[in-house]
Amino acid sequence: MELYGFGESGNAFKVAFALQAMDIDWRLRKVAFFAGETRSAAFRNLNPMGEVPVLVDGDTVLSQSGVILDYLASKTGRFAGRSATERREVLRWLFWDNHKFTGQIGPLRFLTAFLPEEKRPAGAVPFLEGRVKAACKVLDTHLAGREWLVGSAPTVADLSLCGYLWYPEPHGVERALWPGIDAWLDRLAALPGWQHPYDVMPRSFPGADARDK
Amino acid sequence: MELYGFGESGNAFKVAFALQAMDIDWRLRKVAFFAGETRSAAFRNLNPMGEVPVLVDGDTVLSQSGVILDYLASKTGRFAGRSATERREVLRWLFWDNHKFTGQIGPLRFLTAFLPEEKRPAGAVPFLEGRVKAACKVLDTHLAGREWLVGSAPTVADLSLCGYLWYPEPHGVERALWPGIDAWLDRLAALPGWQHPYDVMPRSFPGADARDK
Repeated sequence: MELYGFGESGNAFKVAFALQAMDIDWRLRKVAFFAGETRSAAFRNLNPMGEVPVLVDGDTVLSQSGVILDYLASKTGRFAGRSATERREVLRWLFWDNHKFTGQIGPLRFLTAFLPEEKRPAGAVPFLEGRVKAACKVLDTHLAGREWLVGSAPTVADLSLCGYLWYPEPHGVERALWPGIDAWLDRLAALPGWQHPYDVMPRSFPGADARDK
Repeated sequence: MELYGFGESGNAFKVAFALQAMDIDWRLRKVAFFAGETRSAAFRNLNPMGEVPVLVDGDTVLSQSGVILDYLASKTGRFAGRSATERREVLRWLFWDNHKFTGQIGPLRFLTAFLPEEKRPAGAVPFLEGRVKAACKVLDTHLAGREWLVGSAPTVADLSLCGYLWYPEPHGVERALWPGIDAWLDRLAALPGWQHPYDVMPRSFPGADARDK
């Protein structure tokens, strides 16, 4: 399978992590996000929503990480949940992630880490920080005394929600404040196939790779 | 079926619209949102995410409108898409709605219409307005020369994305600017079962019903 993505995209990382954890053969098609590639006509032709990740599996072209994760879980039967009830719970957490968790964390990190301060809309960062904190409380409470989000095994819901929490740039989730989230991330990082996002896909931000040297 | 919701919730309206369009027998369990009911222990016991809508169908208790819409479409075979490819497309738009469309429109309307100005986080409104406008462009472009989001018939994707666009309070989507969205909303309002959200469920905002008299 071919994955369109780049290092900084936590949404692309969710899919890359799933592909590796499910032991699927895949290759990266790196997208030059910060050079504007997702706004190009060629990319919009592939995905009119103008977003990564896009997964290509033969004739099937999918976007939105939640759909891709659901597709991979259905296709392989892995990380899918073990009953119809569990599968609905997995889908529920995938939606909640897009709506309330990653949906706030992603823009918060983008504004603070990748947008020059003079272009940052005043007040947006504290607003998003408040929303991330409220979502962390829901997630941390759910994880108290529980190893995984749904049932007794990891599912694509876990692979989705953790997507942005590995990055060094500020994203609003301080692990030290949330013991349930902190321990769950340790369990996730111990799964076969986990690697740090910046080791899975090269970065797109200008000079990012040079800075590491 | 029993739906937990209230008039102001566009996410609850999505489900109410689907229940009516699918001709399902349902009743409302009104939630006193503005009196804090979704933060109560009893409500959190029903839904730890602390959100409406919640749908109860016998032993099945579901939250997140996207999951509920997927459940209703699967159960009835209506508004579901006509092939596996269409069903994945429906799910993709449901995710995009939660992530990029309603996920921005809902908070924008909440901040401007229901939060006193002194409590409104500075800068959050223009930030959200920008994100809504970018999403409108994607949606309007997709709807050009097309009647429904997926295939040739309405699906739960249409019922989802329109959820907040009926409200008189500011939500960032000006119909006059987006001809594709405007015509699509006319088609949606002509579907059997459509009613204005404030006619489907009573409001929760203090004094809202009295103001109408």
